[in-house]
Amino acid sequence: MQKQSSGEELLATRNMDLHILDHRLRVTSISKNGLVNFTHPLIKLIFLRNRTRCKFFSLTETPENYTVVLDEEGFKELRPSEHLQVESAIWLPLNVVSNGSASSSSQAVGVTKIAKSVIAPLAQQHVSVFMLSTYQTDFILVKEKDLSVVVSTLEEEFNIYKEEGGESVPVHCQDVSNGLHKNGREGTAIQPTVHPVLIPKNQFCVMSLDPDTLPSIATTLIDVLFYSSSPKEDPQPSPSQDCVKFFSFSLIDGYISLVMDTEAQRQFPADLLFTSSSGELWRMVRIGGQPLGFDECGIVAQISQPLADSDISAYYISTFSFDHALANLTVIKQLLHYLPSRKHCTKSLKRT
Amino acid sequence: MQKQSSGEELLATRNMDLHILDHRLRVTSISKNGLVNFTHPLIKLIFLRNRTRCKFFSLTETPENYTVVLDEEGFKELRPSEHLQVESAIWLPLNVVSNGSASSSSQAVGVTKIAKSVIAPLAQQHVSVFMLSTYQTDFILVKEKDLSVVVSTLEEEFNIYKEEGGESVPVHCQDVSNGLHKNGREGTAIQPTVHPVLIPKNQFCVMSLDPDTLPSIATTLIDVLFYSSSPKEDPQPSPSQDCVKFFSFSLIDGYISLVMDTEAQRQFPADLLFTSSSGELWRMVRIGGQPLGFDECGIVAQISQPLADSDISAYYISTFSFDHALANLTVIKQLLHYLPSRKHCTKSLKRT
Repeated sequence: MQKQSSGEELLATRNMDLHILDHRLRVTSISKNGLVNFTHPLIKLIFLRNRTRCKFFSLTETPENYTVVLDEEGFKELRPSEHLQVESAIWLPLNVVSNGSASSSSQAVGVTKIAKSVIAPLAQQHVSVFMLSTYQTDFILVKEKDLSVVVSTLEEEFNIYKEEGGESVPVHCQDVSNGLHKNGREGTAIQPTVHPVLIPKNQFCVMSLDPDTLPSIATTLIDVLFYSSSPKEDPQPSPSQDCVKFFSFSLIDGYISLVMDTEAQRQFPADLLFTSSSGELWRMVRIGGQPLGFDECGIVAQISQPLADSDISAYYISTFSFDHALANLTVIKQLLHYLPSRKHCTKSLKRT
Repeated sequence: MQKQSSGEELLATRNMDLHILDHRLRVTSISKNGLVNFTHPLIKLIFLRNRTRCKFFSLTETPENYTVVLDEEGFKELRPSEHLQVESAIWLPLNVVSNGSASSSSQAVGVTKIAKSVIAPLAQQHVSVFMLSTYQTDFILVKEKDLSVVVSTLEEEFNIYKEEGGESVPVHCQDVSNGLHKNGREGTAIQPTVHPVLIPKNQFCVMSLDPDTLPSIATTLIDVLFYSSSPKEDPQPSPSQDCVKFFSFSLIDGYISLVMDTEAQRQFPADLLFTSSSGELWRMVRIGGQPLGFDECGIVAQISQPLADSDISAYYISTFSFDHALANLTVIKQLLHYLPSRKHCTKSLKRT
């Protein structure tokens, strides 16, 4: 695999561990109108840690819907409803960890680091991934049924561990497969699909918060997450038509990550949320004109490969309908040259 | 009216104003199971003042249900549901205000002050009242259709004002009636109904909070109000069987009042909630074995008259199903001698 990798890159990745985390995840979508019916369980999952066993929770608002990714303990809290769509697969989160050696040459953050070592090989094996970048790390979600392919694809470059009950157990291909460990299409060239892209005008920040101070921002966070569509008594200037609603909150293994635009950021107290390099702002490219579905592969690879070539930081967040990459605007514009087609890049946001 | 009033009492009440507040209220009940469907509007009404025009909001949890009393702006937020019961009347809150003279001889707080001047005369006129004591004051809710009777009954002893758009307008009997201003049963002796009473073992406190610090207790308040029936991961010792769930929150014209037992109080930070005389604890008597309905009158009068005779402080909170008086335990026990019957006072809490 990855015959084009230079010796240096190979060395870097060999010093990396891949952890299959001990969470069995569901990817769900709550309709905009249906949010009121899910306020009770969602507030419990976000704020009341001693009332739930859920350890992996992510909620992302987009113009289309609310994407909720959560483990089975969390999923139990969501009552079946016409407003809740549930992707059929069980997803497992993978996480790349530098195993202590300082030989990684990349200074970039986010999805860039794993583009060549994880995302490109999985795309070549036709494994679809659901990406969730957070302030702390990048989670690569793969379907449980693809696990044997994932392990056989990545075990040459990674030490692979499966976390089970707090222990990290080494995993090899034979542990997870019954002989059929490839999708059977190895080496087939990726046939890139042309997706319209959109670059909204808002600027985003990727932030974190001490979980102990979460109560301090509770009412603000509740307001932004659950009431942003309600009219205010003291109306704010409405956001530009060229901006797109995007707000992501995750609470994963006790770590909080928030992605929000500068307009939302202004509503939070400045002293509680922190970002790695202060004031770092990102632009977004949204990929997809029609919902992307969960079977297509190679979308993240198309975006992340050129970023990795230039060692440029980027975050990547998949939602139920679309994918979203966050990077420097100049980078995003360059990126579009690498995509199969640029002709749709000014397509209207309105889905038909 | 009140021929038995001494000259001194009459003097005291003549120095009092009665305000008919500018709120048209609905008295509603949300079933225990239905609370999840109302979490979204209730959290908005409690915490997000700039998203609602509601100025009068009260939520009281009892073992039977959640009683929500709120103005028409707040009521708009509650969607019709099988879990929502709405009392048919529009209720108007009355409030007694000392008009600056210091001639009131009573040192007692709560419903005691208004027992003889308001509650007894209204009971004699067969006007049913719904009482809502708060940390700040006592609201006497009367049905809008009874307003002319209320004014004609109380205008001899009070200066009566109707608040309209921030102004206090003097009201006289002829302003609100068309000649028919009595219920037509004046002077009929009250036929007291025998209601079972119950004295749970929990001790209660009546507290307040600076509205600006409400966000600081948001997650705790949300936990107590909306999730107290959910199991906790670190289980607390379950409350005694002899205790009764009772928790009341009100946000009225910008003032917050909380009534909770000592077990709930322990969950809040000690430095934010305050009570007038620190550590003052109250016992409760709950009146009613079957739901009391909204037409019976004289219930509050039965309880408050002996309190007033002894000038003893007491709070009184009506809910959708039952009435609740808070007072010193010794007082409560004495009180039972005045009630029509004491034989039910150890009746089990369980409603059949």
